Amino acid sequence: MTTTAQVISKEDLLKHWQGHRSLTRRVIEAFPEKDFFEFSVGGMRTFAELTSELLAIGAPAMKGIVNREVKPYDENTDNGKTKAEYLAKWDKATEEINHYWSLLPLEDFDKTFNLFGQYEFPIIHNILYFIDNEIHHRGQGYVYLRALGIEPPFFWER
Amino acid sequence: MTTTAQVISKEDLLKHWQGHRSLTRRVIEAFPEKDFFEFSVGGMRTFAELTSELLAIGAPAMKGIVNREVKPYDENTDNGKTKAEYLAKWDKATEEINHYWSLLPLEDFDKTFNLFGQYEFPIIHNILYFIDNEIHHRGQGYVYLRALGIEPPFFWER
Repeated sequence: MTTTAQVISKEDLLKHWQGHRSLTRRVIEAFPEKDFFEFSVGGMRTFAELTSELLAIGAPAMKGIVNREVKPYDENTDNGKTKAEYLAKWDKATEEINHYWSLLPLEDFDKTFNLFGQYEFPIIHNILYFIDNEIHHRGQGYVYLRALGIEPPFFWER
Repeated sequence: MTTTAQVISKEDLLKHWQGHRSLTRRVIEAFPEKDFFEFSVGGMRTFAELTSELLAIGAPAMKGIVNREVKPYDENTDNGKTKAEYLAKWDKATEEINHYWSLLPLEDFDKTFNLFGQYEFPIIHNILYFIDNEIHHRGQGYVYLRALGIEPPFFWER
């Protein structure tokens, strides 16, 4: 345990990410079943497709980082045909992220890793990218919900 | 200077934020002049209004944090009637954020401050909130651009 001043602790960054993931889960829940799979604006991907992207990053990426295992990015996993199936995958990913996070030493965050054989950056920048990318796509989901006349969850509630 | 392992350095977190701000600047530029002030989806705020929110947070918030000066949040600043005026405000805020960032000691990031007299959290969580909130609203701007038939800048280019 270190008492040296830090911008953020490892534990707090995980809480921050999982807080965001909990909000994204509530955005998935807020979609009507049909619209989750069919609705979008401006020819963009549906929220189910965006969720599949997030599922293809979070847990598989953390596993790849911890095991230093360079596997290509794969968005073609079948996440099911219902919101309930997506939510179950989401919850499984939550556990996996917690698990792999606990295996990543603090000393490794500034080490470089070639994630998915494509993104050769310090691990912290790959992780911040996962979080940012999720906020970005979830923000798009907020517009879909508003366009459907549905009030999204409060952004600041995690 | 510390060589202790960190999740992220203070310098890198500023670069991360300013990288996001640089992308948001390009999203503002991508809007046609008229649509920046008038277009939205689902009854939401225009991108000019969302940008005013971001301008009311970034630099004023950093100034408040560094000076431990509790001033209420004020979104009613006149940012002008043209994109060029907004972009000039944006660039001024960039400099101010860099300035106040340099005055915030690493030891202060986990100290609590009552931002805008409303958000009493560790400073790091207030700062992460600024970044997240910007990504969230910018993601909404991406949908507006797509709905206008305009290709947004690449998310990963900073």
